[in-house]
Amino acid sequence: MRILVLHGPNLNLLGAREPDIYGSATLDDINRNLDKLAKELGVEIESFQSNHEGELVDRIQAAGNKFDAILLNAAAYTHTSVAIRDAVAAVGVPVVELHISNIHSREEFRHQSLIAPVARGVVMGFGPASYSLALRGVIGLVNAEKKE
Amino acid sequence: MRILVLHGPNLNLLGAREPDIYGSATLDDINRNLDKLAKELGVEIESFQSNHEGELVDRIQAAGNKFDAILLNAAAYTHTSVAIRDAVAAVGVPVVELHISNIHSREEFRHQSLIAPVARGVVMGFGPASYSLALRGVIGLVNAEKKE
Amino acid sequence: MRILVLHGPNLNLLGAREPDIYGSATLDDINRNLDKLAKELGVEIESFQSNHEGELVDRIQAAGNKFDAILLNAAAYTHTSVAIRDAVAAVGVPVVELHISNIHSREEFRHQSLIAPVARGVVMGFGPASYSLALRGVIGLVNAEKKE
Amino acid sequence: MRILVLHGPNLNLLGAREPDIYGSATLDDINRNLDKLAKELGVEIESFQSNHEGELVDRIQAAGNKFDAILLNAAAYTHTSVAIRDAVAAVGVPVVELHISNIHSREEFRHQSLIAPVARGVVMGFGPASYSLALRGVIGLVNAEKKE
Amino acid sequence: MRILVLHGPNLNLLGAREPDIYGSATLDDINRNLDKLAKELGVEIESFQSNHEGELVDRIQAAGNKFDAILLNAAAYTHTSVAIRDAVAAVGVPVVELHISNIHSREEFRHQSLIAPVARGVVMGFGPASYSLALRGVIGLVNAEKKE
Amino acid sequence: MRILVLHGPNLNLLGAREPDIYGSATLDDINRNLDKLAKELGVEIESFQSNHEGELVDRIQAAGNKFDAILLNAAAYTHTSVAIRDAVAAVGVPVVELHISNIHSREEFRHQSLIAPVARGVVMGFGPASYSLALRGVIGLVNAEKKE
Amino acid sequence: MRILVLHGPNLNLLGAREPDIYGSATLDDINRNLDKLAKELGVEIESFQSNHEGELVDRIQAAGNKFDAILLNAAAYTHTSVAIRDAVAAVGVPVVELHISNIHSREEFRHQSLIAPVARGVVMGFGPASYSLALRGVIGLVNAEKKE
Amino acid sequence: MRILVLHGPNLNLLGAREPDIYGSATLDDINRNLDKLAKELGVEIESFQSNHEGELVDRIQAAGNKFDAILLNAAAYTHTSVAIRDAVAAVGVPVVELHISNIHSREEFRHQSLIAPVARGVVMGFGPASYSLALRGVIGLVNAEKKE
Amino acid sequence: MRILVLHGPNLNLLGAREPDIYGSATLDDINRNLDKLAKELGVEIESFQSNHEGELVDRIQAAGNKFDAILLNAAAYTHTSVAIRDAVAAVGVPVVELHISNIHSREEFRHQSLIAPVARGVVMGFGPASYSLALRGVIGLVNAEKKE
Amino acid sequence: MRILVLHGPNLNLLGAREPDIYGSATLDDINRNLDKLAKELGVEIESFQSNHEGELVDRIQAAGNKFDAILLNAAAYTHTSVAIRDAVAAVGVPVVELHISNIHSREEFRHQSLIAPVARGVVMGFGPASYSLALRGVIGLVNAEKKE
Amino acid sequence: MRILVLHGPNLNLLGAREPDIYGSATLDDINRNLDKLAKELGVEIESFQSNHEGELVDRIQAAGNKFDAILLNAAAYTHTSVAIRDAVAAVGVPVVELHISNIHSREEFRHQSLIAPVARGVVMGFGPASYSLALRGVIGLVNAEKKE
Amino acid sequence: MRILVLHGPNLNLLGAREPDIYGSATLDDINRNLDKLAKELGVEIESFQSNHEGELVDRIQAAGNKFDAILLNAAAYTHTSVAIRDAVAAVGVPVVELHISNIHSREEFRHQSLIAPVARGVVMGFGPASYSLALRGVIGLVNAEKKE
Repeated sequence: MRILVLHGPNLNLLGAREPDIYGSATLDDINRNLDKLAKELGVEIESFQSNHEGELVDRIQAAGNKFDAILLNAAAYTHTSVAIRDAVAAVGVPVVELHISNIHSREEFRHQSLIAPVARGVVMGFGPASYSLALRGVIGLVNAEKKE
Repeated sequence: MRILVLHGPNLNLLGAREPDIYGSATLDDINRNLDKLAKELGVEIESFQSNHEGELVDRIQAAGNKFDAILLNAAAYTHTSVAIRDAVAAVGVPVVELHISNIHSREEFRHQSLIAPVARGVVMGFGPASYSLALRGVIGLVNAEKKE
Repeated sequence: MRILVLHGPNLNLLGAREPDIYGSATLDDINRNLDKLAKELGVEIESFQSNHEGELVDRIQAAGNKFDAILLNAAAYTHTSVAIRDAVAAVGVPVVELHISNIHSREEFRHQSLIAPVARGVVMGFGPASYSLALRGVIGLVNAEKKE
Repeated sequence: MRILVLHGPNLNLLGAREPDIYGSATLDDINRNLDKLAKELGVEIESFQSNHEGELVDRIQAAGNKFDAILLNAAAYTHTSVAIRDAVAAVGVPVVELHISNIHSREEFRHQSLIAPVARGVVMGFGPASYSLALRGVIGLVNAEKKE
Repeated sequence: MRILVLHGPNLNLLGAREPDIYGSATLDDINRNLDKLAKELGVEIESFQSNHEGELVDRIQAAGNKFDAILLNAAAYTHTSVAIRDAVAAVGVPVVELHISNIHSREEFRHQSLIAPVARGVVMGFGPASYSLALRGVIGLVNAEKKE
Repeated sequence: MRILVLHGPNLNLLGAREPDIYGSATLDDINRNLDKLAKELGVEIESFQSNHEGELVDRIQAAGNKFDAILLNAAAYTHTSVAIRDAVAAVGVPVVELHISNIHSREEFRHQSLIAPVARGVVMGFGPASYSLALRGVIGLVNAEKKE
Repeated sequence: MRILVLHGPNLNLLGAREPDIYGSATLDDINRNLDKLAKELGVEIESFQSNHEGELVDRIQAAGNKFDAILLNAAAYTHTSVAIRDAVAAVGVPVVELHISNIHSREEFRHQSLIAPVARGVVMGFGPASYSLALRGVIGLVNAEKKE
Repeated sequence: MRILVLHGPNLNLLGAREPDIYGSATLDDINRNLDKLAKELGVEIESFQSNHEGELVDRIQAAGNKFDAILLNAAAYTHTSVAIRDAVAAVGVPVVELHISNIHSREEFRHQSLIAPVARGVVMGFGPASYSLALRGVIGLVNAEKKE
Repeated sequence: MRILVLHGPNLNLLGAREPDIYGSATLDDINRNLDKLAKELGVEIESFQSNHEGELVDRIQAAGNKFDAILLNAAAYTHTSVAIRDAVAAVGVPVVELHISNIHSREEFRHQSLIAPVARGVVMGFGPASYSLALRGVIGLVNAEKKE
Repeated sequence: MRILVLHGPNLNLLGAREPDIYGSATLDDINRNLDKLAKELGVEIESFQSNHEGELVDRIQAAGNKFDAILLNAAAYTHTSVAIRDAVAAVGVPVVELHISNIHSREEFRHQSLIAPVARGVVMGFGPASYSLALRGVIGLVNAEKKE
Repeated sequence: MRILVLHGPNLNLLGAREPDIYGSATLDDINRNLDKLAKELGVEIESFQSNHEGELVDRIQAAGNKFDAILLNAAAYTHTSVAIRDAVAAVGVPVVELHISNIHSREEFRHQSLIAPVARGVVMGFGPASYSLALRGVIGLVNAEKKE
Repeated sequence: MRILVLHGPNLNLLGAREPDIYGSATLDDINRNLDKLAKELGVEIESFQSNHEGELVDRIQAAGNKFDAILLNAAAYTHTSVAIRDAVAAVGVPVVELHISNIHSREEFRHQSLIAPVARGVVMGFGPASYSLALRGVIGLVNAEKKE
């Protein structure tokens, strides 16, 4: 089982950016930990970060043939990108939306996710552990689909 | 570590009610599976279901002294209960909000959660597995707090 | 054919409460008259009044096995209870929403019913006769379903 | 007692138009059945259908002198016609609003009725039986007024 | 003169819950102080706290025969309960709405009170002293009505 | 100078309909008085009433060649008719909107006029005298245009 | 009969300010013409202009004893002043709201008048002639009231 | 193949009405050109213009049996007529909505079409050529349906 | 302890203006009674009424040095004045907002107070007794602050 | 005449993505057919697809010098991109907006186009034929401009 | 070149009022510094502060003849005064709106400026330096206009 | 001191694009003039223009280490980009938002800036001089911070 992990805009700054909201772990820390968990669970992951909406769309599209599922932390594009939403709806593999912080306890405009309605599951607010939970969750979804 | 699992209104109908949305597992199935996972993870859980907003408030309040965390599937009260929100904000232990279905792909009025802004984390859309993920997540939160 | 008649909050005050809106008939008068009509029409009815949202949910759930239909005057909970709405959607027997007064000629916040979208039919504004009409209507619905 | 039954736009298509929403009965079927019930109940009815807002206004106005009550299924004009609303408010005899389908389980824009606030009672969602219930209801209202 | 004092959901946590908003006085402290003032002013008070909307409705209804007035701190239900509003409108004795904190300097959703439009007076923001002021105020209202 | 006076839906009921809002003068009274004033002021008027939106549109269109101005009391269509608005915008002679009552002290939905933005002037709230004032006003507008 | 004419903020600039909207007549021209008409109609008028909301409130209050009616062009305060609205509601003599331009064909925020709901009549869009029409209209209202 | 072309209110004024928005072609010019194109494409068209909402509904209904498709320029009724929308949804042949001007670069209230959601295709902004494009488009839709 | 009592626009009309809403007591009556109570409670008060927003701002600013607290009945400016709100936020002594009537049972636009979020406490609906309650309340607030 | 055809995000998935909405034709099919039609009509086209908002802006800008018109199917960016709108407004050649599906019969958020107000024409809902119609339409617009 | 500097309500408290938002400079400091800069730049300035909306209107009107431009910090009136907006639109010399703090990072109701749409330029968020920048900016605007 | 100047989408068209809004200066002119001023003021600037949201995010992020401040004219992305907002909030050096035109006197959707709440200062409406003023402003902010 291969899973694509997509990190959206400004997540490359993790650890440095507003640590009271996002914690002190860097994106590398998160990827490394997630990789470790993936190995334990017997799956393969590939991570990619971009500040460009179009690149995220490109990657989601391409994932259809090469991955069994996607973990998507679209960050700021969560609230503004119909293009990513459409890619998620089109890609044909389960997508789980995740956030490090709890977007509902932040500014009003962060409460609405354009992507959530087409995602299969949503995880948020557990800090970097949101990634681990989402990974476990999406593996469950893929396994459940295989059984059907 | 002791964790209270609260199931809100109509969740006692699980398995029978709208199975295309909620799946065929009953509440007993969910509690039993969760119990098993809890044992594996070395924590104790206690489950309670109620259709009464006031009883859910009573239980959340009481949990402050007897439990280390709460998993809360407030179901319909997610969208209407300020009383439960206030109890969550007051209780002093981490609360994780969870839903079996993805509330963002359902009716408009289910997109808003009054509880999410005061919950620590949110998990939804994984079917009964939402409970397992939320359990893992909340254990992580309790452990992290102990370290601080 | 057995039909449950549910009266929501403050309807126990009928006859005393704001008689210019609700008329002078008491809840007992209404139940007695409805009982008489039920006998004429060859059906059995059981009435229950509660000021508690949770009790109404409990009763609607329980009705699924014991009754063929429900007449529901949810009163104030009409406008605020997603829990009752979910119970109605889940119960599996036809539910008719009814009101003694015409809620559309009253305050703005009474114009919206959370329950109507999942009810089968709606009757309002005929005073206590709303109950009789709703009874005739729901019997028709049950009979029609049997034929299918 | 004489009662005018007004059918609004597109109701002449009943039976042919979207039968999953409106059923397979034609307008003639409905009028014939209603006529039969009227005879049983000892009242006289006259039916009229029009696709023209103005003609419906004309008929409501004219009914003031010749009828004791009006059954009004304004169909699409329910949601857009202040002119019909004003005629209803002006006519001086009780008007009951009715709909074959439950307008609250359909599109958002059909949830609002401009006419309901000035109607005496509302009946909807019972299929063609909405007419029979409305007829019984309005007879009750006329009789009640006579007593006063 | 007998006055019922109703405390809504989560007020049993006073002193422990968010003391920067609600202060350090417990509900017992408040009831004891209010009792003392009541004695000075020659009136009798009875206090009741509940987390259950339905119980508050029950108590307001029952007060009509046994009390001359009600002090109501509906807490969270202030913003969501039409059932309590209807009970207040129906009870026939003056009801004063009160809050310990100033709800207008808190979250947006706490700014709207469903109960205020049917209350006689409103007092908020004085901490526990809100109860004393409301008591003096409602005694004045009862005395004024007796004079009329 | 020839001026068309258009009366919208339900104005044929004037005198009989809700006299506390519209007064006791009939449409004939108004037309007769207006005719008298027209003669004094040396202009010719022609009056027309219709409950049909389409007929009002027809008349406004036709007026372009035969009249120098229009007095328009569109009644209920004031709030719903883009068709009449477009006819007013297209007709090429000055149109004055008028109302017998003050629409701003009535229901919320009557506060918005779709026609006012394309009318030259607006007069309302003077009872039947609104017509006389509007007549004087529109004559002034026509004379002013001639001078330019 | 004595009538107070109140001109609100920036109306002292008439003739100079945005002449394509307000025309080239100055406030003195308007007062002089209105005075002439007043004499013809046998009434006395007194005019006052102020840029200060408070002074307009003072004058409206004071008019209660010295004038039979008020013509009020509140200009910008039309859209923002509850204080003037309250003074109009309190003063006890008929108030007619008037505007030189048609406020409904201007910016969105000018479409709403806080004063209109408590004014007796409204005249707008006739240029300086709005004053003459309003004067005739208010005289009619005063005479009609005397008859009652 | 027979196609009905329906022109809504005020389109009979084309060429004369606001030529900077609608151009200088008259409705006759448009019909003549469209007729020519129809002949080239081997289809038959019939045109009808009305200012009456009800007549447009009548024609759409009647078209079900006599035409293979409808081109509908509902003009002002585009934004206000649920009756026409319902007729379009009921008629059973493809309907294409068209406009001479681009309604999205005009007033805010013209941006919403009640008919578009039930039309098959929409064409606007090409001046009279909108009709030709819509004709080609609808022929394609009819042919495509026949193949299925 | 010195306390400033500020009365906003139109309160000089008390007793004469809309007595069914505001009662028959004049502003002098209220000031006299409040003065008496102040003496009993051992504090000094100074009253000031103005219809001018700017004068109220001036007085609030000046109070910072000369008074220990302010009772503010801003009347109409409650709903429109950010300037008074800013003065209240800046003045540095406790301000209590009060109203004679219950603004929540009046027009919609009176339900929002711009001042309440920066006031310490709010009292309304007790008629002239609102002043006495507010006085007692504000003395309590000043004494409580001194203790800290 | 040279025409640029721009395809927005996810349109490279055509044929594979949600075929019940978008049909089974691929983007290559569409380009090939459009090319064929272009040759028949004697014009030259160049096609470009991108998932990147910025690239679409770049291309629109560059088209000003090299193309006579643009066909723009901005897909998801239709609803979110002010940058593309500004480029369209700036480019100086006619732009026609087109969509394969009818965006008005899809989700609410797809009903608003930020681009439509600055486009010359709009075509939607004809499947791949939307491109052919838009091509014919834009050629007409370019020819019409040349004549002026 | 002569420039009027207008300071709105509560700005006389600068230095004392909420120094974390407005800084510690007093209004005198600001005027003195601005005067110094004005001399360097060879222009003359005159400053005026008022808490009265009407006085600010008076001054803006009067400035038309005596000043070449206005710097306007309308403070609270920025968000509520149509009267000042109208004066700005009428005065005929360039007006620059300025704020010491960044109003967009403060309360929601401060985000909207009624004056900005009619101001020539806007400067905010630089503390007292906002005045210097605005002065430089407005001199540039005046010089640019002279060249034309 | 080094300052990054970022120009957003379509600003590369300056001088050619809508010169009545943006003036005739090209982006090169602006950069050249700004460079000259920078030298006078003893700071170094570097300019960058992009039509790609992601590139602007990249540059803002990178600026944190190499520049002391950023001047940001985000153009169209001002109104739609949460990604740029988040980058601005994260970068750690002062950012000043600027616009050539006054966005508040343009279309409604341009009135809201997603970036302003996290910018330090805002300058707009001075044409190309907005850049010079913003440069002076941001130098002041950097110097002030150094002092602290």
